[in-house]
Amino acid sequence: MIFLDAAATTPVRKEVLEAMWPYLTGEFGNPSSHHALGESAANALSAARATVAKAIGCRPGEITFTSGGTEADNLAVKGIALARRARDAALNRIAISAIEHPAVEESAHYLERVHGFVVDVVPVDRYGTVTPEALRSVLRPETALASIMYANNEIGTVQPVRQLSEICAEYGVPFHTDAVQAAGWLPIDAKELGVDALSISGHKLGAPKGSGVLYAKGRLRLEPLVHGGGQERGRRSGTENVAGAVALATALALATSEQSERADRVSQLRDAFIRTILETVPGALLTGHPSQRLPSVASFCFPGTSGESVLLELERLGVVCSSGSACAAGSDAPSPVLTALGIEAEVAQTAVRFSFDSTVTAAELEQAVDAVAAAVGSVQGLGKR
Amino acid sequence: MIFLDAAATTPVRKEVLEAMWPYLTGEFGNPSSHHALGESAANALSAARATVAKAIGCRPGEITFTSGGTEADNLAVKGIALARRARDAALNRIAISAIEHPAVEESAHYLERVHGFVVDVVPVDRYGTVTPEALRSVLRPETALASIMYANNEIGTVQPVRQLSEICAEYGVPFHTDAVQAAGWLPIDAKELGVDALSISGHKLGAPKGSGVLYAKGRLRLEPLVHGGGQERGRRSGTENVAGAVALATALALATSEQSERADRVSQLRDAFIRTILETVPGALLTGHPSQRLPSVASFCFPGTSGESVLLELERLGVVCSSGSACAAGSDAPSPVLTALGIEAEVAQTAVRFSFDSTVTAAELEQAVDAVAAAVGSVQGLGKR
Repeated sequence: MIFLDAAATTPVRKEVLEAMWPYLTGEFGNPSSHHALGESAANALSAARATVAKAIGCRPGEITFTSGGTEADNLAVKGIALARRARDAALNRIAISAIEHPAVEESAHYLERVHGFVVDVVPVDRYGTVTPEALRSVLRPETALASIMYANNEIGTVQPVRQLSEICAEYGVPFHTDAVQAAGWLPIDAKELGVDALSISGHKLGAPKGSGVLYAKGRLRLEPLVHGGGQERGRRSGTENVAGAVALATALALATSEQSERADRVSQLRDAFIRTILETVPGALLTGHPSQRLPSVASFCFPGTSGESVLLELERLGVVCSSGSACAAGSDAPSPVLTALGIEAEVAQTAVRFSFDSTVTAAELEQAVDAVAAAVGSVQGLGKR
Repeated sequence: MIFLDAAATTPVRKEVLEAMWPYLTGEFGNPSSHHALGESAANALSAARATVAKAIGCRPGEITFTSGGTEADNLAVKGIALARRARDAALNRIAISAIEHPAVEESAHYLERVHGFVVDVVPVDRYGTVTPEALRSVLRPETALASIMYANNEIGTVQPVRQLSEICAEYGVPFHTDAVQAAGWLPIDAKELGVDALSISGHKLGAPKGSGVLYAKGRLRLEPLVHGGGQERGRRSGTENVAGAVALATALALATSEQSERADRVSQLRDAFIRTILETVPGALLTGHPSQRLPSVASFCFPGTSGESVLLELERLGVVCSSGSACAAGSDAPSPVLTALGIEAEVAQTAVRFSFDSTVTAAELEQAVDAVAAAVGSVQGLGKR
């Protein structure tokens, strides 16, 4: 099997399993307990927090462990918007891009539906890029928060986050970025990016499912999503998932140390893959930005096919990938991300996303190109009979 | 070390580690992915859900996996209250007992602070019991939800849940119970209890930290806490923690199958432990109900000491326990649970809780009694010098 669906999830790395193992076995203390077993768990959590802080270039107190990227996005969007409006009732708008992950989009809609916020949607260009002008056009004195993802999960387009965060700073609007897909592939230093909040998911990086992180700058107030015993400095209650936090920290530290090398290597493989697909598969369209894209994502539409049929045929040929976001894989509707780019619904339904883990090889991708050409040809042939 | 702090957390059981292991290694698919790897993860999740449903005596569709007991409590309290009020604006009150876990108490306060609900607190008697009369005294036509814990985490008192749920049914008020401490020790069949919603935490049952469950009856509507890709039938978005769900299901199935035998055995050990402590340690006071209590919890005050000093001395003697809830272990204030029972602050500060795992032995508890007598004597002696 050639696994080209790493944007959906990744296998747990061996180093990560080894690092978390003690906290699934002998070191089972509750970090809130005041005895040696509890303190040992608290120390592990604290070391994990320091490791994550180092990767993000922030202080440990700015890191909140969550149950995943979706929860981190929810905490950022709802938490910042509600806390700001509680102090200034005029702050009742939030700005998000037209291609956010549902974790951000649905959090914004919740604020609209239940709390009466107005959601301003920043349009994207045909590559999925949020331009500085587009962002400026929606920011207002009442904007409580802007949330624009670092890199898109379906098309891989990378936003000019530094430029966008500077614009928000001009307007005094806190800026959150969903870095779930970017982490491990792009630099995530919060100061260099200029962001006020940033979300990461463990299982996209070689940690198990069930852990995530929210970076929130300094004294930025957050209304918690989960209330209770006051863990995580009151920002996220509930007994901490110690093994999950250790796993995430280990995976993030590894991915950060390898980031530059793996981004270079995989970008080259990706470029060769995209070039060969476009040359080999008649009618293939690259979706997303031609160059400002994740090293790990190559996404296409294959007009005249259906995405699902191509996927089935590819799986039969030993290549595992997806039609887009795993989070929306149950839906028959065309991807809202692709339609936001101006791609017609009929074409959008032929989308296939190939996403690479850091271990991907040139040989695997060469095999994958042959399989794609065969699968698309076979599905197009079926359509013509 | 004699570990008598199982109400804070428990070691992961061997059977649980074995059951979850494949989902930390080769079976790493995202349950939302439409390929064999994803479907295998989805099948594991579905089997875990069926196992949990069987233990609770409900349908699989009534089970929502969460990141823990605290999140399950938050989802129940906020989710039910907000969804009911969205359909009937008059439903703006919620009723909780005076001794709820902070996960319920703080969720209620959030509803008060942010959403304008009124919180009605049901008083408890000197044993920590919510009487049917006390519950009736606070229920009103505007009550959106009542949340009363099954068994208290600090004093072990078990509520007459069946009686209380019948009263709520009379008033047409949905009834939620936090069964985090009860699960594994008391029957948790939702129909027999007559509850509409029930929370469970994995790590109190021999699963790792980071997984929990909310049972919510039939068509009971819930406003989600975490919005996004629509996982868990839209009740809890975010990539599912497959390994965590499998672990929780395995631990719950084991605990349920053993429940009656272990409750009998440990109740007897608990009774002997309580009797001997009361006979041996001058001035020792049992807190909570003398008979309607968790098999696994023996809680005392030792007037003339400080709880923390006794704990330190006990740990030195090889006995690990706690002053009460691990979730509040950072606080110096007397336990609100104990003061709600009418215990004076000065006495409440001398609280020590012993909580037993199912593997506890008579020999361990005999040793523990000697250590308690020595520790209390030594701390009282220090106080007198």
